[in-house]
Amino acid sequence: MSHATQGKVSASAVRPMASGRVFNFSAGPATMPLEVLEQLQADLVDLRGGGAGILEISHRGELFEKILQESEDAFRKVGNISQDYAVLFLPAGATQQFGMLPLNFLADGASADYPDTGVWTSKAIADGKEVGKINEIWKGADFGYRRTPRAGELKTTPGSTYLHYCSNNTVWGTRWVAPPQPAAGAWLARDASSDIYAEPLDLKGCAFLYASGQKNLGPSGMTMVVIRRDLLKAPVRKLPSMLRYDEHAKAESRLNTPATFGMHAVGVMCQWILRQGGLVEMQSRAKTRSDLVLAAIRNSNGFWKANAESECQSFVNVLFHAANPKLEPLFLKEAANAGLAALAGHKVTGGMRASMYNAMPVEGAKALADVMVDFAQRNG
Amino acid sequence: MSHATQGKVSASAVRPMASGRVFNFSAGPATMPLEVLEQLQADLVDLRGGGAGILEISHRGELFEKILQESEDAFRKVGNISQDYAVLFLPAGATQQFGMLPLNFLADGASADYPDTGVWTSKAIADGKEVGKINEIWKGADFGYRRTPRAGELKTTPGSTYLHYCSNNTVWGTRWVAPPQPAAGAWLARDASSDIYAEPLDLKGCAFLYASGQKNLGPSGMTMVVIRRDLLKAPVRKLPSMLRYDEHAKAESRLNTPATFGMHAVGVMCQWILRQGGLVEMQSRAKTRSDLVLAAIRNSNGFWKANAESECQSFVNVLFHAANPKLEPLFLKEAANAGLAALAGHKVTGGMRASMYNAMPVEGAKALADVMVDFAQRNG
Repeated sequence: MSHATQGKVSASAVRPMASGRVFNFSAGPATMPLEVLEQLQADLVDLRGGGAGILEISHRGELFEKILQESEDAFRKVGNISQDYAVLFLPAGATQQFGMLPLNFLADGASADYPDTGVWTSKAIADGKEVGKINEIWKGADFGYRRTPRAGELKTTPGSTYLHYCSNNTVWGTRWVAPPQPAAGAWLARDASSDIYAEPLDLKGCAFLYASGQKNLGPSGMTMVVIRRDLLKAPVRKLPSMLRYDEHAKAESRLNTPATFGMHAVGVMCQWILRQGGLVEMQSRAKTRSDLVLAAIRNSNGFWKANAESECQSFVNVLFHAANPKLEPLFLKEAANAGLAALAGHKVTGGMRASMYNAMPVEGAKALADVMVDFAQRNG
Repeated sequence: MSHATQGKVSASAVRPMASGRVFNFSAGPATMPLEVLEQLQADLVDLRGGGAGILEISHRGELFEKILQESEDAFRKVGNISQDYAVLFLPAGATQQFGMLPLNFLADGASADYPDTGVWTSKAIADGKEVGKINEIWKGADFGYRRTPRAGELKTTPGSTYLHYCSNNTVWGTRWVAPPQPAAGAWLARDASSDIYAEPLDLKGCAFLYASGQKNLGPSGMTMVVIRRDLLKAPVRKLPSMLRYDEHAKAESRLNTPATFGMHAVGVMCQWILRQGGLVEMQSRAKTRSDLVLAAIRNSNGFWKANAESECQSFVNVLFHAANPKLEPLFLKEAANAGLAALAGHKVTGGMRASMYNAMPVEGAKALADVMVDFAQRNG
């Protein structure tokens, strides 16, 4: 996943295109559709003719009740999420879930399985260890984080409570080909921060899913939690209210004054996804975009190298290096001059990372591929 | 304070004035200055010519570094906050602090003093009790929450770690005339969610202050924490990273991808306060506004009644009832027709509540007072 710390290329160093906008490859906060932004602009000053903007109205008033219901309805419709699951709009980004998940469910003496497939699972493991016993059942570092576990490779822990995994690893550009299978009796928790709604959602076997907003869903600071209703019970330890899923569910995500703007923005973004044709269309675009960039790598005669092993290649984050790393700063500069922003890789990987979530136009990927081909020809 | 659950009057039932905007008395999320909203509108699509909006840029990039620094600088300048204190921009509203404060500082076997002066301190006490020993040293319920403790009335607990109080109680419309004095060796923690920056800030004797954004500072979902640097050490128990003040401080409020929009909005709001003349001017306006409404109550021959005892009357929240409560729905309806929105009191108090934070024009208070006088004359 990735609540990511991407490139240091400042937007101000990038030359916007004639439209005034750049192709923004930021890993998150990430580019958003212009029509979503324009809707939010209007709603800031006057939401539906009420004479007040979305930042100014009560989270308990009739108008916001309607807004939140619309957001939940759109979010459910996009993912085809049944009423077997509660949908929560929670604050503080996905990292807060690294703590809340074990605090609610990992009892003293119990354990949970966590395969480590990149920066964000490492952080989830570290936070989990502050709470209870975490079994690090796979160490991606042994494979340079170039792939995720293969079928049959994962050894789960008998008696563990749940298995936590991250379905797409933003920093390293890898994904799981199929979800892992938890130990008998254990349930599956998925961090879907970077791939939620970039492809059709399959909740089969998944009891708990969470995703931060700032990649495919809109604003940062908002985390969507999809939780099977049987998990909505008192936590295994005493906890303040804001850390309890059951309390958030009872309060319909308004235990306190929530981030109302973010709740609305996620809804507007989900409505945009529906207008575009839903997740089948999102998946098709993601595939088209990543294919364009991967072809530029594959056809470069070794000038460019993808980080991920090909069967685990993420469809939304393509991490690549130049065979001659000294050329990378020049490439980033030329890309910025061409209106391609935020392509620098995460600080732990270096190189380049093209993050291409739902709002990235296919034209953006095409423009990047063209610049890559041209640069390789001139410098190869 | 109040992360408040105010009136059920829907904005759509209110008739906007010729400007298209209403006078919005919502307790929070609350009205904001139009010029702040217009700045945020522009920044949503193109932040400073970079070709991307505030929702779309990396929280680690140069441009956002600058934005966050400007927000912190403006926030410090408004409150004249020295470098003895760290300023943190934290997620999840003030209620998250109800848990974080004791989780970080209240060791097993220790205790903390909490006078209960209203809905939000009751919640802080309940959350605190999930963590450790809370001494409820004053019970406002015994006084109908019509006042806060008088000088000398509070009995603190020897050996307690800290004293937590809420300087302005939004729901009941009361304030502390002077801050309480904690037990010898204990430090003071203040919930300033509804009165921060409505008057000059005095941090003397205060080690920890927090305030949610949605009243005087802008957007909901953002909490400002002002913490004396000697408190920035490892917490008294093991905690996931997002619950640790020391970790947030080390990461300069970017432990994960934060609510970048909210961080910027607080800065834009603080810059607006500075342009208006700072906290002396804000205090003067708050006094003028509350005086207007209180005069309408005082001069009504008992038609209207204020909830708070006069020495404890909040300058930003005026809670009042009609002597004949049956008239209240009619008053709320007539006020709405006059473009005065969200005046219904909190569900636990009923009646009317006029919340008038920094962005409420004096004209709004004048309009409300006029409607109150007129209504009393016609129905008295």
